[in-house]
Amino acid sequence: MPGGGHPLDVATRLEPQREGLFRGETSSHYANMVGPFGGVIAAKVLNAVLLHPARLGEPVAFTVNYAGPIADGEFAVEARPARTNRSTQHWTVELRQKEAIAVTATAICAARRDTWSSLEASFPSVPAPEALPPHSVAGRPPWTRCYDMRFVKGELDFSPGAQERDSVSTLWVRDEPPRPLDFLSLVAIADVFFPRLFVRRPRWVPIGTVSFTTYFHADAAMLAAVGAAYVLATARAQQFRNGYFDQSAEIWSPAGALLASTHQLVYYKE
Amino acid sequence: MPGGGHPLDVATRLEPQREGLFRGETSSHYANMVGPFGGVIAAKVLNAVLLHPARLGEPVAFTVNYAGPIADGEFAVEARPARTNRSTQHWTVELRQKEAIAVTATAICAARRDTWSSLEASFPSVPAPEALPPHSVAGRPPWTRCYDMRFVKGELDFSPGAQERDSVSTLWVRDEPPRPLDFLSLVAIADVFFPRLFVRRPRWVPIGTVSFTTYFHADAAMLAAVGAAYVLATARAQQFRNGYFDQSAEIWSPAGALLASTHQLVYYKE
Repeated sequence: MPGGGHPLDVATRLEPQREGLFRGETSSHYANMVGPFGGVIAAKVLNAVLLHPARLGEPVAFTVNYAGPIADGEFAVEARPARTNRSTQHWTVELRQKEAIAVTATAICAARRDTWSSLEASFPSVPAPEALPPHSVAGRPPWTRCYDMRFVKGELDFSPGAQERDSVSTLWVRDEPPRPLDFLSLVAIADVFFPRLFVRRPRWVPIGTVSFTTYFHADAAMLAAVGAAYVLATARAQQFRNGYFDQSAEIWSPAGALLASTHQLVYYKE
Repeated sequence: MPGGGHPLDVATRLEPQREGLFRGETSSHYANMVGPFGGVIAAKVLNAVLLHPARLGEPVAFTVNYAGPIADGEFAVEARPARTNRSTQHWTVELRQKEAIAVTATAICAARRDTWSSLEASFPSVPAPEALPPHSVAGRPPWTRCYDMRFVKGELDFSPGAQERDSVSTLWVRDEPPRPLDFLSLVAIADVFFPRLFVRRPRWVPIGTVSFTTYFHADAAMLAAVGAAYVLATARAQQFRNGYFDQSAEIWSPAGALLASTHQLVYYKE
């Protein structure tokens, strides 16, 4: 470990120790202000389920709880199939560092069948990604260099007097360098949004996601069809209150398919 | 067990066996078409955290995964503090029946502090609950009699030709008989919505929530201030696709405070 390949593949690589138990390492490419970028932590945790020999089906729901700080270096991830049904499988996962639990997670995998389907959410009206400038990474933590982000609305702006009336951010985003979309990159992109608090109130305070849930509407074939294209990501908060705010977001294919809906609760100080 | 009191208190009563392990029983009051009403299962699971002697703070995020069917009768719930920090505590919970895991869950409790706060979601424009008729419980499963629901929009209607253009339901709801609001009744109410699929496509098919997440914006004092009043509940789906749809919802106090935002992924057949 870690070996070569795309930085996301290196960062999410897990070495089997015994059935369900894996060893991993943090990646300097995806470092955040403090500790690693949470989206890639989520991808590492999900990968323990994807790599487990007993896995059936593909992920449909995934919740990651960030229980404690993660230091640079080694960690262990253990995935356990809690229950296997005819078409669904429930997983519990823990990430530990020096025996302390840093992440708890649950995942549900399912074998999908073709059914009546209907999209109710609306794809936002946006310009093409090529018509938008790349976001500036100056002064931003390392993980932001692993994404090509083109903001339609709600870019982070800490300049004096900057303030948005709402916390909505809408952006085109893809891995940098480009990489074909799969469940690992999609779950990381689902956490790619800068904190909604900083959009509404542009000054830095200690902040961190405590719980992060993603519902996958796409299967592996839909993700493969997106390839390395930009996806459209849009997020908003509903309530900031006494140290916690929620965020809801959607990730869309450029053809207008809803790939995932995702939600999180975020701690903030003051 | 179960003893007297409000049906919800009876249904969520847990008997300590040893630290973190509780014995409970299903309640005929909250029976659904098949098995118990999921909202009350969630409340039972949350109660294992609330009753745990090591608990610090109040719930801010809670995810329940329905892993298998629950038969009428006894069950065991085991809550474990996975990590305790200065202001947050992470929990994992399992509900077992005859040694099979029927529910996995994670919860985060926190000690909140007064901070800058802001509401971004909008309280819907609705008539007062007293201006609306009570919903019909004829032909509905027993648990629906445990709620007084007053629909503004999106009542279930299986009559021929009935069909809504969208899956939005908005209703006033309170426990029946009335009961002061707390975390247990709030999490149950967060699952009070009939399946969005039946609003959009009014014919019965096998259906069931697989994962259910609630973010609590209210603390115990805010819930106590609501008392036994109606709360406003509004829900919508974003994507129905190949056997699964998502639902997002908000629960509001009658004074316009956002008490909780809540999300779920639901399985459906055909």
